[in-house]
Amino acid sequence: MTKKKVDLLITNASELITLQGWSQKPALAVQMRDLGIIRKGSIAIHNGKIVATGKASEIERTFSGKESIDATGEVVMPGFVDPHTHLVFAGFREDEFEMRIKGLSYMEILQRGGGILKSVQETRKASEEQLVENCKKTLDIMLEHGTTTVEAKSGYGLTLKDEMKCLRVIQRLNKEHPVTVVPTFLGAHAIPAEYERNADEYVKLIIDEMIPAVADQKLAEFCDVFCEKEVFNKDQTKQILLHGKTHGLKPKLHADEMTAFKGAELAAEVEAVSAEHLLFASIAGLKAMAKKHVNAVLLPAAAFSLMLSRYANARKMIEIGIAVALGTDFNPSCWVENQQTIIALACRQMKMTPAEAITAVTINAAHAIKRAHEIGSLEPGKKADVIILNIPNHKFLGYRFGTNLVNKVIKEGKLVVDRE
Amino acid sequence: MTKKKVDLLITNASELITLQGWSQKPALAVQMRDLGIIRKGSIAIHNGKIVATGKASEIERTFSGKESIDATGEVVMPGFVDPHTHLVFAGFREDEFEMRIKGLSYMEILQRGGGILKSVQETRKASEEQLVENCKKTLDIMLEHGTTTVEAKSGYGLTLKDEMKCLRVIQRLNKEHPVTVVPTFLGAHAIPAEYERNADEYVKLIIDEMIPAVADQKLAEFCDVFCEKEVFNKDQTKQILLHGKTHGLKPKLHADEMTAFKGAELAAEVEAVSAEHLLFASIAGLKAMAKKHVNAVLLPAAAFSLMLSRYANARKMIEIGIAVALGTDFNPSCWVENQQTIIALACRQMKMTPAEAITAVTINAAHAIKRAHEIGSLEPGKKADVIILNIPNHKFLGYRFGTNLVNKVIKEGKLVVDRE
Repeated sequence: MTKKKVDLLITNASELITLQGWSQKPALAVQMRDLGIIRKGSIAIHNGKIVATGKASEIERTFSGKESIDATGEVVMPGFVDPHTHLVFAGFREDEFEMRIKGLSYMEILQRGGGILKSVQETRKASEEQLVENCKKTLDIMLEHGTTTVEAKSGYGLTLKDEMKCLRVIQRLNKEHPVTVVPTFLGAHAIPAEYERNADEYVKLIIDEMIPAVADQKLAEFCDVFCEKEVFNKDQTKQILLHGKTHGLKPKLHADEMTAFKGAELAAEVEAVSAEHLLFASIAGLKAMAKKHVNAVLLPAAAFSLMLSRYANARKMIEIGIAVALGTDFNPSCWVENQQTIIALACRQMKMTPAEAITAVTINAAHAIKRAHEIGSLEPGKKADVIILNIPNHKFLGYRFGTNLVNKVIKEGKLVVDRE
Repeated sequence: MTKKKVDLLITNASELITLQGWSQKPALAVQMRDLGIIRKGSIAIHNGKIVATGKASEIERTFSGKESIDATGEVVMPGFVDPHTHLVFAGFREDEFEMRIKGLSYMEILQRGGGILKSVQETRKASEEQLVENCKKTLDIMLEHGTTTVEAKSGYGLTLKDEMKCLRVIQRLNKEHPVTVVPTFLGAHAIPAEYERNADEYVKLIIDEMIPAVADQKLAEFCDVFCEKEVFNKDQTKQILLHGKTHGLKPKLHADEMTAFKGAELAAEVEAVSAEHLLFASIAGLKAMAKKHVNAVLLPAAAFSLMLSRYANARKMIEIGIAVALGTDFNPSCWVENQQTIIALACRQMKMTPAEAITAVTINAAHAIKRAHEIGSLEPGKKADVIILNIPNHKFLGYRFGTNLVNKVIKEGKLVVDRE
């Protein structure tokens, strides 16, 4: 029998983590612990897509690779999907980090004109070109740490012109960088200084001008709102998200991050694709989310960086049957590019097992950005976004922390990172 | 004027963090925030030693370098000193990590024959050669993340033969790897299974046989004890440390980690070089430590990995005037090699400022292992252990986390890591 020729074989992984079976619906409850592991597993890749996965002996009997990577003793798994980042901004906020150490809260810093509004000032000043360069540096680091798809929000422009600029940056990144970037419009990230006493006016601007323009130019897939006390209230959030929906922008929302604000309930009501943070979500709200299949995107690095004493109740969400995903929340006050760090935090601070956390940064993260049909698991027909980790089994993710365990990154069939 | 020729110049750092002034006595209280920063600073290095530091213009007027590294826009500082690691062991404990996530305590796992005792079994089985290879891999990773000197404890042998084997491993590493390794004898790390009901007998073995043998062969500088409820009590600890002292081994102890055990008081009483962990130390104990100049070595990654709800009260210690140092506590249940991760944890979980944390991983860490005369700051005459970080100022350490910010490592004047 002649073997079928393919572009690339990755052979003999100690664990080939396929995560197969959850492409139609996310992994829920105990399913989150079922990684679809093939021991001594191989994967065949052709034209940037996965052709087959299976036992090494079987794959090597069927296929021959133009190129081949030996993964003996290593873990092979889908590239990380980061479903929540504020990728596009200018400047840094290291001074504010020190203020937080000394006890100032996020809202206090925001009210002093710091926080998001400082980044807004700098982002408005920055050219599209400068922003593209900043983002490429970040995406390089993300890719080096195994992230192959990232959701990216606007939200540091807060004018029609500047929000459009940030979304065009994302559009360009998609063409100019190997990482896939999924765009979200977050004009409702903060109330800009010029609308300080007139939030409703700003909401009107978002609805009347920004959303139509974004939709018209197809610059975003999702519309997100920072629904929070002293930011956007529930009515404003609902208006924006429902209006976004009518323009084809799927709803997401920052919900119950700092206070119990019934954001989870609202996420269910508007049938959001995902609700993010959820530290103060009520049980009733979580149950409503489960019923409406709203994904939870948990962001433990935000709680860690804001030095909150609370983390989202991941165990309760998993028990209730919510699809839990994990993201970095990369932003100027939570400067972390590495989903391995998020796994380490999720295991320790939210008591997720390594298997649950892995599901949350792959297939469930893909569901949270409506990409599960093409990424997030290693199954025939999906994009060959694959990472190879220098660890003998998946339980080392979380257990070992603080260093990069990813050795190689394959993006749509191409070896784009090789750290050996 | 002819310029003086030196081996290496590192020029024009945006911040040259010298940490000068604390070589005789560690930095205390507000001194911990004084990093001795020279903006647009350069450093001249010759024969593996620091010759001069100063403003770039001044250094470049005085010296010419055979080699030169341009550090424009980057931070240059002393290599990290890691004053507390359990470097030498065989095997992994990733299964136990999952048990902890599911709620088992450290002591419960230990009592089930897991924990330290599992690593003891595997370390006894391992050859000296295997252990050297394991440790070299770890030291490679540490060096890549900026650590140029590391304290290393025995303590997974727990027989005369196996403790000596582990200490010989450390001795060999010092010759075969660029990282400087400072040896500590920790025969009193756990009560071995074979002495389960007869701890005093094991203490006698440590005192009568191990300490004299270790001292005789000059295999350690320090003697350490895990002083803790259900491990070594205060009397046993005191006996061991005082006996070690008579053999020239300087005392250190794991104190008040899991329970309030008056370990800090004991550290003061025996005039230990350092007391480690200190999560449950009493205020009276801390004041006694300050009076006797006992260094505190805080290990937030241990609390993080053991998922304790408490961290050491660093702020109180700094207020009282204790010299605070930070270490990784690298060991099979706390698998982290990276002192940058420790800074990130210290800032968030113990409210140390980035400057305080930097002092704690450099000059104060050097004091905690009696090496402040030769490392821990950038001052003429000291070893040229220097790191270059890809950040514009020191406040980015802690603020940015989860990735390696170190670009270059110079060990005793030689460029040993270059990640660009």
